Amino acid sequence: MNTYTKVTPEIVSELSTIVGNNNLISDFDRMENYGHDETSKEEYGHMPEVVVMPQSCEQVAQVMRLATRYHIPVTPRGAGSGLSGGAIPLFGGIVLSVEKMNKVLEIDEKNLTVTAEAGIITNELNNQVIEHKLFFAGYPMSLETCFLGGNIAENAGGGRAVKYGVTGRYVLGLEIVTPDGRIVNLGGKVTKDVSGYDLKQLYIGSEGTLGIITKATIKLLGLPTAKADLLVPFKTAEEAIAVVSVIMTKGIVPTSIEFMDRTSLQMSCNYLNETLPLEKVGAMLLIELDGSEEKQVEADMISVGDLCEANGAMEVYIAEDKNTQERIWSVRRNIAEALKVYSPVQSLEDIVVPIGSIPLVLPKLTMLSEKYGVTIPCYGHAGDGNLHATIVKNPESTMEHWHEIEPMILRELYAFIVTELGGKISGEHGIGIKRREFLREVISDTEYDLFCALKKAFDPQMIMNPGKIIRIQ
Amino acid sequence: MNTYTKVTPEIVSELSTIVGNNNLISDFDRMENYGHDETSKEEYGHMPEVVVMPQSCEQVAQVMRLATRYHIPVTPRGAGSGLSGGAIPLFGGIVLSVEKMNKVLEIDEKNLTVTAEAGIITNELNNQVIEHKLFFAGYPMSLETCFLGGNIAENAGGGRAVKYGVTGRYVLGLEIVTPDGRIVNLGGKVTKDVSGYDLKQLYIGSEGTLGIITKATIKLLGLPTAKADLLVPFKTAEEAIAVVSVIMTKGIVPTSIEFMDRTSLQMSCNYLNETLPLEKVGAMLLIELDGSEEKQVEADMISVGDLCEANGAMEVYIAEDKNTQERIWSVRRNIAEALKVYSPVQSLEDIVVPIGSIPLVLPKLTMLSEKYGVTIPCYGHAGDGNLHATIVKNPESTMEHWHEIEPMILRELYAFIVTELGGKISGEHGIGIKRREFLREVISDTEYDLFCALKKAFDPQMIMNPGKIIRIQ
Repeated sequence: MNTYTKVTPEIVSELSTIVGNNNLISDFDRMENYGHDETSKEEYGHMPEVVVMPQSCEQVAQVMRLATRYHIPVTPRGAGSGLSGGAIPLFGGIVLSVEKMNKVLEIDEKNLTVTAEAGIITNELNNQVIEHKLFFAGYPMSLETCFLGGNIAENAGGGRAVKYGVTGRYVLGLEIVTPDGRIVNLGGKVTKDVSGYDLKQLYIGSEGTLGIITKATIKLLGLPTAKADLLVPFKTAEEAIAVVSVIMTKGIVPTSIEFMDRTSLQMSCNYLNETLPLEKVGAMLLIELDGSEEKQVEADMISVGDLCEANGAMEVYIAEDKNTQERIWSVRRNIAEALKVYSPVQSLEDIVVPIGSIPLVLPKLTMLSEKYGVTIPCYGHAGDGNLHATIVKNPESTMEHWHEIEPMILRELYAFIVTELGGKISGEHGIGIKRREFLREVISDTEYDLFCALKKAFDPQMIMNPGKIIRIQ
Repeated sequence: MNTYTKVTPEIVSELSTIVGNNNLISDFDRMENYGHDETSKEEYGHMPEVVVMPQSCEQVAQVMRLATRYHIPVTPRGAGSGLSGGAIPLFGGIVLSVEKMNKVLEIDEKNLTVTAEAGIITNELNNQVIEHKLFFAGYPMSLETCFLGGNIAENAGGGRAVKYGVTGRYVLGLEIVTPDGRIVNLGGKVTKDVSGYDLKQLYIGSEGTLGIITKATIKLLGLPTAKADLLVPFKTAEEAIAVVSVIMTKGIVPTSIEFMDRTSLQMSCNYLNETLPLEKVGAMLLIELDGSEEKQVEADMISVGDLCEANGAMEVYIAEDKNTQERIWSVRRNIAEALKVYSPVQSLEDIVVPIGSIPLVLPKLTMLSEKYGVTIPCYGHAGDGNLHATIVKNPESTMEHWHEIEPMILRELYAFIVTELGGKISGEHGIGIKRREFLREVISDTEYDLFCALKKAFDPQMIMNPGKIIRIQ
């Protein structure tokens, strides 16, 4: 077991010299927000010893050099909207928040790129590039709060990945600070590159365990000029989910196919004070299509609508105006939050399976729900095979019972997803602390050994966000 | 310097027990083909001590365990169609050819995937999936000979990357044999996955230096039903290349935009005994569009044609029938071979720049050509900013002079591409031996250190294709 140096007042003072007094927090109360993310604070939270908010890459590098010198763990933090504990300072030490590095540095219309600092809010970036009729295809559900750097560190997926792929596809260049405080620029503005190992891709999704992302150059696309959203209710969740693979193998590539079961819909509507026609509805699909040609989008919309109707849809609602589209998407985006308000004791899952196996997931969830006496509302990016099954504690059972059954349910679910269906335990939320022990159980010894070798090669002192993805030995 | 164990007759006999007598070559004459790839044999070639052709992943693993035990270098080899020396056994030892592992194992229409062994020829894979109206979007120019495993090891680009991206985007799963002879399966059939470090992506493009790819699962797309090719001559190469960024920022995404200057066109036509209307032509663009809707493709074709005409095109030829399309593409695909026949002493380059900087490349080539008295025909995937400038020795100068000026030209070119334009020295051919020393000069010390750390972590004995990408110390 690694033992780290405690952050003394002298070290705090050194840090303050680097980042400035206004960009450092060391009193307990004000640090509280930096001790958890969107996972359960009680279960995963841990307080930092000090929080720094550098204003430049050079300051980040100086902090890392200090941390290396003293052997202090450093946890990089974006908006804290993560769902696997990636930003939690498991061993105390320094939380390095990029919140003050939040500028768009360049929008390059000649190369269709935007370069921005890691701390910019995703939607802020979107708003700035949309003015140039350009568009960043990443679309995490937390886009109103999450930071670009966090999206990249987690390789966020989201609502448009069916057509556009996940965040990583759009990252052309990264500025990284290594654990020992060196600054390295990877990639650039080129769209193809095989000039050596693809380190850029390695940092994407590495959850801040190999270095800190301080800046990124993102590939933009021309803003689609036509868009349509279909909201399609089905009597049962099974019917709704079965349509997903039908659509996905028909040659049309929707922008999104989101699945929401009855409980998820109801909770989100309650939370938002929104009304949707839910009578007799077991689940809904939210299907988005976009493109540069209105006629094409319309034709695709009709084809998809017909497919749904031929496969049990009760109705096909079309949302063509922006306002209605935003209302529906808001229902979708707020499900996680709504379910949390409904029952804070829960486990928000992120399983992903091959699209052909999606229909096999729901019966398993029903079985687990009955076997363990819990509710498991389910929603998510069905077009990617990525479902956010959320295991919710029965309000009538004790916390002790919950702590006993939660890992049992997860083990049974993960074994099924991985061994039976060839799926993975996380499609977009990451491993962090929350899934670390479970990951170890479902991957091979060789893969795990390679993970450890990689971590050791890039962070030999084990000070860079330690305890995430893998245990530190 | 690493010293490796020589392959003794006893070791050959052990190897023969693993792979069988028929799958091993140890006599000099028959090994000759395995001592070079498509780079200059004289300049880069090196003979192996023994060649093995395992028939299964388990045999590959056994060979690697033997190599680890004796400390013998192993060079994995696909079709030998590489262009940077990746398959050349720089330190002798064992060449491990995957040529006998060449089967399609599964076409999964429910998940739109194909799983195949590393030694299958790309076009063979294409032909098999096309029967299911499916399509592998990778399209390296050497598709009639190159192997799937080699495509992945080099992260091959090719003619369709503008729209579809490079090979790596389609690799969902990999079976890898590690340098110490363990078998590991990465990824699978899921389209999103953040369950730990993305090792799969790391192996893609790592040129066989971290392990051997033995099997891959590839994502397929629905076969586009409509296609059009435009052949667009311009009076000057500068005019042709300037149109590329104009098209790329107009919202239409062509499948391909290939650039061919006059010399490249002429040489390939001569080589193929083909005729094209080349009078007064300085260069041509070959632009392909595809999609699922004929009308859409036609509309895009007209828009692109109009853009070309408004920007100096002499003519816009439309190739709508398959036969003519194949004829034109054959001219494009055979340029490299034709230029080699014309002058075997040359350096085929693979520079890549941000698309907005493409017009700045040609004047630099002209300048270098005049300064050093060489011809530099140029062609390539202009829509990606990836140009195969080919520096050809002046037939009247001596070999001594060539050896003196070649590295000078490359240094000057690379410095310009990397420092001035933010480009990279290889977009799709890789570093291998050919660009290793130059790579070291254009990347930062930190990036290079991370390359070395990575290599050491995955191949501590330095037996896995040593001497490629980085030097071994």
